[in-house]
Amino acid sequence: MSNPALEFADARIHPDKLKSFCVEAIEASGLSRQHAEQTAEVLVTTDTWGTFSHGSRQLVPLLNNLRKGGLKADAQPEIVDQGSGFVVVDGHFAMPMVTSRLAMQAAIDKARSAGIAYAAVRRSGHYGAAGYYAVMAADQDMIGLSMTNVDVCMTVPGARAPVIGTNPLAYAVPAGTERTVFLDIATSVVAISKVIAAKTAGKPIPEGWLVDDRGRPTTDTSTYPDKGAILPMSGHKGYGLALMIEILSGVLTGASFLSGVKPWLAPDPEPADEGHAFIAVNIESLMGVETFKARMDAMIQEVRSAPLAEGAERIYMPGEMEWERRDAAYRQGLQLPDYVLINLFNVAEQTGLTDELAARFDKE
Amino acid sequence: MSNPALEFADARIHPDKLKSFCVEAIEASGLSRQHAEQTAEVLVTTDTWGTFSHGSRQLVPLLNNLRKGGLKADAQPEIVDQGSGFVVVDGHFAMPMVTSRLAMQAAIDKARSAGIAYAAVRRSGHYGAAGYYAVMAADQDMIGLSMTNVDVCMTVPGARAPVIGTNPLAYAVPAGTERTVFLDIATSVVAISKVIAAKTAGKPIPEGWLVDDRGRPTTDTSTYPDKGAILPMSGHKGYGLALMIEILSGVLTGASFLSGVKPWLAPDPEPADEGHAFIAVNIESLMGVETFKARMDAMIQEVRSAPLAEGAERIYMPGEMEWERRDAAYRQGLQLPDYVLINLFNVAEQTGLTDELAARFDKE
Repeated sequence: MSNPALEFADARIHPDKLKSFCVEAIEASGLSRQHAEQTAEVLVTTDTWGTFSHGSRQLVPLLNNLRKGGLKADAQPEIVDQGSGFVVVDGHFAMPMVTSRLAMQAAIDKARSAGIAYAAVRRSGHYGAAGYYAVMAADQDMIGLSMTNVDVCMTVPGARAPVIGTNPLAYAVPAGTERTVFLDIATSVVAISKVIAAKTAGKPIPEGWLVDDRGRPTTDTSTYPDKGAILPMSGHKGYGLALMIEILSGVLTGASFLSGVKPWLAPDPEPADEGHAFIAVNIESLMGVETFKARMDAMIQEVRSAPLAEGAERIYMPGEMEWERRDAAYRQGLQLPDYVLINLFNVAEQTGLTDELAARFDKE
Repeated sequence: MSNPALEFADARIHPDKLKSFCVEAIEASGLSRQHAEQTAEVLVTTDTWGTFSHGSRQLVPLLNNLRKGGLKADAQPEIVDQGSGFVVVDGHFAMPMVTSRLAMQAAIDKARSAGIAYAAVRRSGHYGAAGYYAVMAADQDMIGLSMTNVDVCMTVPGARAPVIGTNPLAYAVPAGTERTVFLDIATSVVAISKVIAAKTAGKPIPEGWLVDDRGRPTTDTSTYPDKGAILPMSGHKGYGLALMIEILSGVLTGASFLSGVKPWLAPDPEPADEGHAFIAVNIESLMGVETFKARMDAMIQEVRSAPLAEGAERIYMPGEMEWERRDAAYRQGLQLPDYVLINLFNVAEQTGLTDELAARFDKE
């Protein structure tokens, strides 16, 4: 018997309607309206970029964390220390999107006079797509960087077991007539979801993605993730970048690091205590914003007009595909992948909102 | 007839003696004693790390730049703008190591009260090993980041020609009983020198390093670098990181960017106008330095004690190999690779210091 959620596999939902559903589901889980709206905004923006793995489908584990104590519905993130160019934020295990928005906004506000500012966040959890917070800065004429540690799942050169997280790094930079350039990458060679997808399909993976439980390269996913581990991108380079992110977001913030970070996807999650680092650079401090944006446009246009490789149709800037998907989502509505639909109807059932969710779809 | 420099192939030279030779050679090329010492310090520190490609052998192109007008022997780098958390430095095409040390030190000084600071550098050139400046911050109990754009030599996904430089990123972080963690990487899949080495040896390279002049993957180095281009590490990830560095060091600093950067290795180089970006984060602003260092030691020891892969003998931290090579260099002297010896004796001949260089080696 197929999942009833899959009745909506060909239907579309407008991003604003998906967002209002998320707000209701989160509010029903004990968060304030304001916190629910801030969280839904992060998740649905991520869906509009086509990054469905980090969008609204994450409501399932987020609400599980609220139920089991990994996150606290009534907690308020708090700025516990600050100076002219920095803030330290204690998340108190509030919804990490709420904490992260507050922290990045504080960095932006500090950077306006200092030129650059750093926000250190501790006692937080899974903050969703790193890129969301970087784009907050770009929307305010700043360059934004966003990074977080996550629970260990990646090995390093010389080891055979998970040692560090696939710690992501994101940045965003505004342009003039061109769209904001933004990148959001994990420091692993590929997303773990791609390994799981190959495993589900019973297919081998390319060499260089995984090591087995003796640390040997493998293309066999059959015992993953119980055994073996994913590799960093470009060997020692990805390892070194993952460590930099661990240090800036975990060690320096007072959060947990490496094996101290608890897995937020556990069935009975404890507070994860992930740490985040946000950096905002105020363009106007360095150079007139209009001058900078014209220079960005020139840079983008030079890259885009490079001679194409055989078979290539265009050269994309980082973020360009995401903006085009977002435009399409607002124009035509979102067509959600099956696993997202299943997750959303699961949340709807938990929160008594099944009819409310179904009614938001435009069926053909 | 073999090169007379190769008489010293089995000889060793103490780093301090190599440095004093470099100082004399640079002074003979018109720089002040102080600028010569600062430059030599960067180059020889790089040699002691075993990063010979970026060490004293670069005196040949650096002195060529001084002769041909790519660099100005009597120029002084100047802070042209500043605020509580930033400085803008105009290098005036002075020796880039002098400019870069001044800029990173200015960032460190600003960060002491602001918490974090950014130094933007324009009108500079090839600054050697990015890691040197990051380590300056670590030596002063800060976290240092260092990046620069370079002339275009790397392609990007969808293109078939060089579009952007192999823009390097370096960071350094102090620890307690453990050594400073530091990483210095190009954003290309491998160093171009490895491609050239394979070409010289007449060997094919692994797939994934190069594209040919139609943008197709190739293992044939025979027409490189006239045709084809090196690839970014991890495809769109390395491309996106190279762009971030281009923006922070080139677009935002007022330096040239992409094809605007002139090749410093040209026979008759014009001023390269590379830009650099330095960031210093003051640990003490965020957390007691001793607490932080103890946390770093704990992190390092956790990584190092991970179960080893089959055949692996130990897990290295970024920078650990370099510190061990530096210890060995001070204990036993440096044994310089042939291409470094040839370059140094070339410089010695140009500057009338051949006997002075030869006398500095300890021959068996």
